Amino acid sequence: MIIKPIAHIENDFTKKFGIPRQSRIAKSLLSKIVFEDEFNDRNALRGIEEYSHLWLIWEFTEAQKDKFSPTVRPPRLGGNTRVGVFATRSPNRPNNLGLSLVKLERVENTVLVVSGADLMNSTPIYDIKPYLPGFEAIPDAKGGFADNYTDYTLKITFDQKLLCKLPKEKRAPLLDILASDPRPSYQNDPERIYGFEYAGFEVKFKVEDNILTLIDIM
Amino acid sequence: MIIKPIAHIENDFTKKFGIPRQSRIAKSLLSKIVFEDEFNDRNALRGIEEYSHLWLIWEFTEAQKDKFSPTVRPPRLGGNTRVGVFATRSPNRPNNLGLSLVKLERVENTVLVVSGADLMNSTPIYDIKPYLPGFEAIPDAKGGFADNYTDYTLKITFDQKLLCKLPKEKRAPLLDILASDPRPSYQNDPERIYGFEYAGFEVKFKVEDNILTLIDIM
Repeated sequence: MIIKPIAHIENDFTKKFGIPRQSRIAKSLLSKIVFEDEFNDRNALRGIEEYSHLWLIWEFTEAQKDKFSPTVRPPRLGGNTRVGVFATRSPNRPNNLGLSLVKLERVENTVLVVSGADLMNSTPIYDIKPYLPGFEAIPDAKGGFADNYTDYTLKITFDQKLLCKLPKEKRAPLLDILASDPRPSYQNDPERIYGFEYAGFEVKFKVEDNILTLIDIM
Repeated sequence: MIIKPIAHIENDFTKKFGIPRQSRIAKSLLSKIVFEDEFNDRNALRGIEEYSHLWLIWEFTEAQKDKFSPTVRPPRLGGNTRVGVFATRSPNRPNNLGLSLVKLERVENTVLVVSGADLMNSTPIYDIKPYLPGFEAIPDAKGGFADNYTDYTLKITFDQKLLCKLPKEKRAPLLDILASDPRPSYQNDPERIYGFEYAGFEVKFKVEDNILTLIDIM
């Protein structure tokens, strides 16, 4: 089956590293969904404001494309435990399809402004569907290992002067992202300095005892 | 982007007509997810029993494949009101990708037995992902027009002898399906006799004043 992008995402993540590991973690991070010419029609969005949340089906463009591996090692399990790929939301899966739930903040002409996306800038999107809480909100569903980490966050310490290097509207999303622990898997080296690109800046931090210290923004 | 089926569904719906319009409507209807040879590996399912619900990404094989139509007419709005395709879960959409939430009943070797699927028999499946209630259950999300019909059901009258023509385990699912109103859109002709294929039988019914009368099973 051949599918083609209907839209792409525009946001502050130009690199894979630092992107939240699930949608709805960085709730203050705004992204724009920009439609490709063929699908750029206000009529295709008629009534979409009646929904607060949307599903995106998209492509993990940075996923490994080698042959099928039936198991993966989720970062939230420490990176050493193997789990079946269909029991995870790992990017390394057949067809490399991603599924994310985002909040629809507003519609600007034919652009959808959403929050909470975990997609890298320019990621192709193949479908957008409304979230149907009456059918799809199942609070008592059993959530496996992933659900133990829903409320997992790091404390953050930072010098306000550092944070002020960023434009005002970029600050809250960065704090959300840092709190979600953007380290690659559970690396526990308190001396190590990690960095990622965000909104055109390089953000440096380290983590010790569940406290993340912001080191630099440049 | 080229995607290939990882599995297909096996159930009692050989025709499009009669299939529930959303997943989770016909909760007693069981389906089997059977993996294609290349992906048929018990390891790929390791840990999946820890989740009660799964997402399926699949292909609307019977959807129209002509050029992009930005609006559709949802049956639940009477079939005359046009809504933007991205504000609906309509099959007639770019890429013809379906998204359904199903309940995982049990794992039989490498076959997943699920309930509540709204997929026709032999529909190809492109991805299976666990449902993460901690992130994806949002009971206070705004659900648009579709959510007004979550609890919509018809009353059913039938002769028990008729129902007994079906094998025992096929009866409760049929009643679920009938209650969900399998008429094509809101046709309101009380004299009209509708029919659909289910489990190798032809089911005939009519509807008057929100009461569905089972006419024949043969």
